[in-house]
Amino acid sequence: MKIIDGGVTAPKGYCATGKHIGIKKVKKDLTLLLSETECVAAGAFTKNIVKAAPVLWDEKIVTSGEKVRGILVNSGNANACTGEQGIKDNETMAKTFATLASVSAEKILVCSTGVIGVNLPIEKIVEGIKDTYTYLGSSLENGNDAAEGIITTDTFVKQIAVTFELNGKEITIGGMAKGSGMIHPNMATMLSFITTDANISYHMLNKALKESVVDSYNMISVDGDTSTNDTVLTLANGMAGNDLIDKEDEAFTKFKETLHFVNLKLAKDIIHDGEGATKFVEVFVKRAKTKNDARTIAKSVISSSLFKTAIFGEDANWGRILAAMGYSGAEFNPQLVTIHYISSKGRIILMEAGTPIKFDEIKALEILKEKEITVEIELNQGVEEATAWGCDLSYEYVRINGEYRS
Amino acid sequence: MKIIDGGVTAPKGYCATGKHIGIKKVKKDLTLLLSETECVAAGAFTKNIVKAAPVLWDEKIVTSGEKVRGILVNSGNANACTGEQGIKDNETMAKTFATLASVSAEKILVCSTGVIGVNLPIEKIVEGIKDTYTYLGSSLENGNDAAEGIITTDTFVKQIAVTFELNGKEITIGGMAKGSGMIHPNMATMLSFITTDANISYHMLNKALKESVVDSYNMISVDGDTSTNDTVLTLANGMAGNDLIDKEDEAFTKFKETLHFVNLKLAKDIIHDGEGATKFVEVFVKRAKTKNDARTIAKSVISSSLFKTAIFGEDANWGRILAAMGYSGAEFNPQLVTIHYISSKGRIILMEAGTPIKFDEIKALEILKEKEITVEIELNQGVEEATAWGCDLSYEYVRINGEYRS
Repeated sequence: MKIIDGGVTAPKGYCATGKHIGIKKVKKDLTLLLSETECVAAGAFTKNIVKAAPVLWDEKIVTSGEKVRGILVNSGNANACTGEQGIKDNETMAKTFATLASVSAEKILVCSTGVIGVNLPIEKIVEGIKDTYTYLGSSLENGNDAAEGIITTDTFVKQIAVTFELNGKEITIGGMAKGSGMIHPNMATMLSFITTDANISYHMLNKALKESVVDSYNMISVDGDTSTNDTVLTLANGMAGNDLIDKEDEAFTKFKETLHFVNLKLAKDIIHDGEGATKFVEVFVKRAKTKNDARTIAKSVISSSLFKTAIFGEDANWGRILAAMGYSGAEFNPQLVTIHYISSKGRIILMEAGTPIKFDEIKALEILKEKEITVEIELNQGVEEATAWGCDLSYEYVRINGEYRS
Repeated sequence: MKIIDGGVTAPKGYCATGKHIGIKKVKKDLTLLLSETECVAAGAFTKNIVKAAPVLWDEKIVTSGEKVRGILVNSGNANACTGEQGIKDNETMAKTFATLASVSAEKILVCSTGVIGVNLPIEKIVEGIKDTYTYLGSSLENGNDAAEGIITTDTFVKQIAVTFELNGKEITIGGMAKGSGMIHPNMATMLSFITTDANISYHMLNKALKESVVDSYNMISVDGDTSTNDTVLTLANGMAGNDLIDKEDEAFTKFKETLHFVNLKLAKDIIHDGEGATKFVEVFVKRAKTKNDARTIAKSVISSSLFKTAIFGEDANWGRILAAMGYSGAEFNPQLVTIHYISSKGRIILMEAGTPIKFDEIKALEILKEKEITVEIELNQGVEEATAWGCDLSYEYVRINGEYRS
């Protein structure tokens, strides 16, 4: 596997672009992505029962197994809690793009992110789609514009592309994402779009995505809140010409691992851009009885407000880690737990086999002063492991999310 | 029902006191509570699987149904994650108090709160118990001293006493509590102690406590973290001389309602004293399909970091409320939801039957500027309701929990 320049336009047969069409004041707010040929599509969606209109649209199409041709994303307005009008507007958007591409509306997936509870400026958007369509292309710049068009409060563009070989054919996977920024009232969405020219069946693409999501996007936490619009979409157009991946063989494993690499990179980028975050934190749980226990414990620790403020305060506080493990709902024996803090400055043990270890406070502070911190938790009850990623809880988080009015 | 002065020494037959014995630097750190006669005892304990030594001790005694005589509480050290020595120290504490009271160790319940992972200064504590024992009394001052002895970072003492009549006999219920303060590293506990002279069976006291806890202590949230030591203990010595309450009759209902009033008062006091809190927030969910849905939704909203920062920022943000409802796991139809913000300055509707309502921003700010805010959520799907209490998430919370080292 090789990391290459670019994002969603890197695989064969995809063109895209992003433009400012007037939903936001200045920044790009519309992204179009189109494949030359039909794609199988897999998706993962928010589990929030309050779902935005585009989520309902996409979920229906993606679960039907029907092939699609493109994706339309607007930022600045989430088209959530917008009633019947929102459903209609969503369809209008899909239709407008579809007509330009000479396909039916159901061939276009739609995502929206931004303010909720406000109807879309649909006439402006229809005109914007028509104008933006003329800029579609497959250059690096096109991919970059597309990645810019989907972000809201993100401070940097998130994209990646990789290639790998499968039976003599070069396969490319590209991706772009936006983080869960909530700097503006009522904003909150994680979006991720993956394109690939791999030739893979609907069933196997679905399987690869589902298995990856559970250990990537589902293992990151900025503040534990889940949005009404969270969506991950993956398109595969088969233009790489490899033999169809349609069962769990070596080719599938290779594809799945590469897809997971792309998803992990984008998920971690989202955390690196977490609101007000000053530190990137990894919680690595090992030797768990079950994979699920490992995931549950890692996520419980990374989501604890007390743990997150301790990280912000550079405090080697094992008590808060153990407490968050204890209320996670996962099973483990506290008497067997060993906890380390790790950074580029070294590692320090805080607890061994359930017993707190007296540690060198100066060494601990030196480790915790770093921007990237790992908490390693050994349960010593099995062989399963899981990792969760998150950030600290800072004054800046409270300011961004509390004081936007002042 | 009448609120009277005092706390745990208000009911007949209880004496108590609190003293400084040297676990903390200056403040009171030991509380003893003793009943003249044997008491039935009911308890509720942390669900964290990391349990402190005293929790294991109390849980065993309370679930056995055996009668008890007293409670010993030390603050400043939680005796959690202290291994075999912790178990031994706990027993030594119970024995010391028990010997002075001429009873067996199992007649004494023990609670500890404070730093975790550090062994108790047990010799100092044994001497302290002996000295403190000589100050036991049933005056208002004794009750107050006892309530002081159990607190750690709380900024005020939390106690209450009430009387009511049952078949011509006056019944008294007294209580004291400490909040989930975490100003110091590794500190975190909610403790509550209720005494009553009511004559009630073990089974019915248990039932009354369990039914009350679920809608009082279990419905408050400072930061969503659960401690290793959380404990609620209720003693009933029967000295009021009423006919034994041993079934679900009118007397039981009256007792249960009064006990719940006491628990609610103490639970709300804990929130009023929440770390760094600038506002007291009530989330009232009504017209839910099931009681459990109502509770789940109320707790999900009160625990959302995004909602809590919005309250701190005085931002009438219905989107974060709806999002937290949506990911709570409870069932409801978003199309039927109506949301109001209420304070002493009036009420304002934010959403009606799933549709956002354009509201007067100035009026909203006027309402949210108040210290006590209620969010009223109507689900319009049934007749059940529940209320949760919490506080905002402020800079001060981050400072207290993150910067203790500086």
